[in-house]
Amino acid sequence: MIIKDFSYGAVAAGIKYKDRLDLGLIYSTVPAVTAGVFTTNQVKAAPVLLSVDRLKQGRCQAVLVNSGCANACTGDQGMEAALQTSRLAAQALGIEEDMVLVSSTGVIGAALNVDAFEQNMQALVENLDPDNFGRVAEAIMTTDTVPKTAFDSVEIGGTEVRLMGMAKGAGMIMPNMATMLAFVMTDAQISFSQLKSALRSAVERTFNRITIDGDTSTNDMVLVMANGTAGNPWIDDDEHPDYQAFCDGLEMLLKDLAMQIVADGEGATKFITIRVCGAKEHSDAERMARTVANSNLVKTAFFGEDANWGRIMGAMGRSGVKFNPDRVDIAFGDVVIVKNGLSVGQEQERAATALLRQKSITVCIDLKDGAGCEEIYTCDFSIDYVKINADYRT
Amino acid sequence: MIIKDFSYGAVAAGIKYKDRLDLGLIYSTVPAVTAGVFTTNQVKAAPVLLSVDRLKQGRCQAVLVNSGCANACTGDQGMEAALQTSRLAAQALGIEEDMVLVSSTGVIGAALNVDAFEQNMQALVENLDPDNFGRVAEAIMTTDTVPKTAFDSVEIGGTEVRLMGMAKGAGMIMPNMATMLAFVMTDAQISFSQLKSALRSAVERTFNRITIDGDTSTNDMVLVMANGTAGNPWIDDDEHPDYQAFCDGLEMLLKDLAMQIVADGEGATKFITIRVCGAKEHSDAERMARTVANSNLVKTAFFGEDANWGRIMGAMGRSGVKFNPDRVDIAFGDVVIVKNGLSVGQEQERAATALLRQKSITVCIDLKDGAGCEEIYTCDFSIDYVKINADYRT
Repeated sequence: MIIKDFSYGAVAAGIKYKDRLDLGLIYSTVPAVTAGVFTTNQVKAAPVLLSVDRLKQGRCQAVLVNSGCANACTGDQGMEAALQTSRLAAQALGIEEDMVLVSSTGVIGAALNVDAFEQNMQALVENLDPDNFGRVAEAIMTTDTVPKTAFDSVEIGGTEVRLMGMAKGAGMIMPNMATMLAFVMTDAQISFSQLKSALRSAVERTFNRITIDGDTSTNDMVLVMANGTAGNPWIDDDEHPDYQAFCDGLEMLLKDLAMQIVADGEGATKFITIRVCGAKEHSDAERMARTVANSNLVKTAFFGEDANWGRIMGAMGRSGVKFNPDRVDIAFGDVVIVKNGLSVGQEQERAATALLRQKSITVCIDLKDGAGCEEIYTCDFSIDYVKINADYRT
Repeated sequence: MIIKDFSYGAVAAGIKYKDRLDLGLIYSTVPAVTAGVFTTNQVKAAPVLLSVDRLKQGRCQAVLVNSGCANACTGDQGMEAALQTSRLAAQALGIEEDMVLVSSTGVIGAALNVDAFEQNMQALVENLDPDNFGRVAEAIMTTDTVPKTAFDSVEIGGTEVRLMGMAKGAGMIMPNMATMLAFVMTDAQISFSQLKSALRSAVERTFNRITIDGDTSTNDMVLVMANGTAGNPWIDDDEHPDYQAFCDGLEMLLKDLAMQIVADGEGATKFITIRVCGAKEHSDAERMARTVANSNLVKTAFFGEDANWGRIMGAMGRSGVKFNPDRVDIAFGDVVIVKNGLSVGQEQERAATALLRQKSITVCIDLKDGAGCEEIYTCDFSIDYVKINADYRT
């Protein structure tokens, strides 16, 4: 898929490793309405602080992104480096400096090598091409084992509007945090206020519903750039007849990327959906699902293909959500193993154990106490997770 | 150490494994003032529910404890089993049924084998002996690699008062939760109200300051039995001149046991103290220290002996505690590696890395924002943790 007026470039700048794509550029020849969602971590990397500030104007033309160095916990010097690199990109592109956003992922606490940016900026701009989308998706990878991209289109007032997204995450190059980055390009004509609402609600229901290890990075960033080249009737009102179609399309795209992140979770061998239904409120269901999804004991049991529902009950009980343990049903896929808080029996547990050999598993927890229902997506917790994160030398 | 009128027995009842001590009895020939602290998990095992109820009278004479089965998530049948086993013990001892407390640790969701209790109760009571303290400490072990005991004495009004404690925890027999149990016997003459306050405050500063994996069991229980045989002047008032001495002695005993639990954490290779100072409030310091201590990324880095302070900053930033990242100092032992939010340099990081080869490591985080200071004790996160909890078959 190609979206008019967007082009992409990536080069191997040697920021941390040699001969590996690590510097990317996303460019729209016309200014694009742009909305972003950023890490909630109090410790924010310099590129996050700079991009948050620049996005107050609601538009940008370029995103400069690197892997290999997070430029986090780097103080004034780090902010200076972020400014310098954005200036280099602006000069090479011939655009205003404040139309460039910056994004980084990699080692925390290490200084950004501005020289590497300087020496490679010309080549980076020369590499810009509508077909190089996949190269940027590669350049942002750290311990990701595959690049993550997704494509979607929706009809707005009879016009086809395209969406292209890339993401990285759930990986880290030792010694880094697992940063999640995602960039979405669209040709929709949409105003900042609607784009921002659409992004926030979509992120809430997609990236905020996944967890690998409960840690939140200093560098997380999701951007959506809408350059309007589709020429669809402007979406400038929440009541616009096709606004919901755009929101749905964006959400589907982000969900696709979010699922790819979970599937590529560090050391993951299984994709796990934790669904809690029958809670008093949706927020209760989410909180409980999140606690279960983050429990190391639950996640190691999945790695061991052990239908250990006791650990699930244990995690539910410490989630802070009020419920009656004697009403709980738990199913693995379509195999019910707990009914009203009690084991259904050995035979069902054996069936559940067999089901755990699958790559993708859904756990359904029914509290039978209301209509609140939410899902959280996670992966199992394997020996390789520890190896990857401990830089275990065999 | 022996405390007058307390005796202990343990037998191999075959509850889960053959020929392994798994059923223990603690008995005081005179009723003992008894206080308890129990799991905060909403899913509470039958023995927890029964013991909480019986402790309303503030005294007991016997504790019947088994490993191999948690008797949790077992419904009415589980409660009936808890009642039956306490009745068996009461009959064999010739005491009132409600003077027997029960405690279990092991598989969640499996039915308690009451027959095993019945067949072994006589032998258990016959095994009672003041010298068999260590046998009960063994009988409560699950994946603990060593029994955990501690002894202390304090002077109350010129009389020596003795304290003996045992604990288990941070281990699990697949497929169980990691339950923490601790039982303390003392000959102090102390009233229920003072004993309860002393226990609560000591637990808050000891067992509630340790974390292995952030999961809370359905069966956690700490009991202290005071049978008064020391004949010290009664402690029946918070203003009693020696009340604080008793509190301090109890806290020291529980801290000793708590440290033993961390050191024997599943798969642990290192004992880690996370100290946060300079927080606005003690509660802020505790919250931040707990978040850092529970971070899988931080714990795997310690396993890898990697002085990865970026992960510590990342965990601090998501703790919910407000602080200024630009004021933070971080030291590993006496090696300062972060000063005002920035790396001190390669040389210091190398010194910190060398220090990480030690078995016991203290991380000092100074927020320079107030007088709040707290410590949390934890261990590293190793490949063996995953193996133990996934029942990994090599």
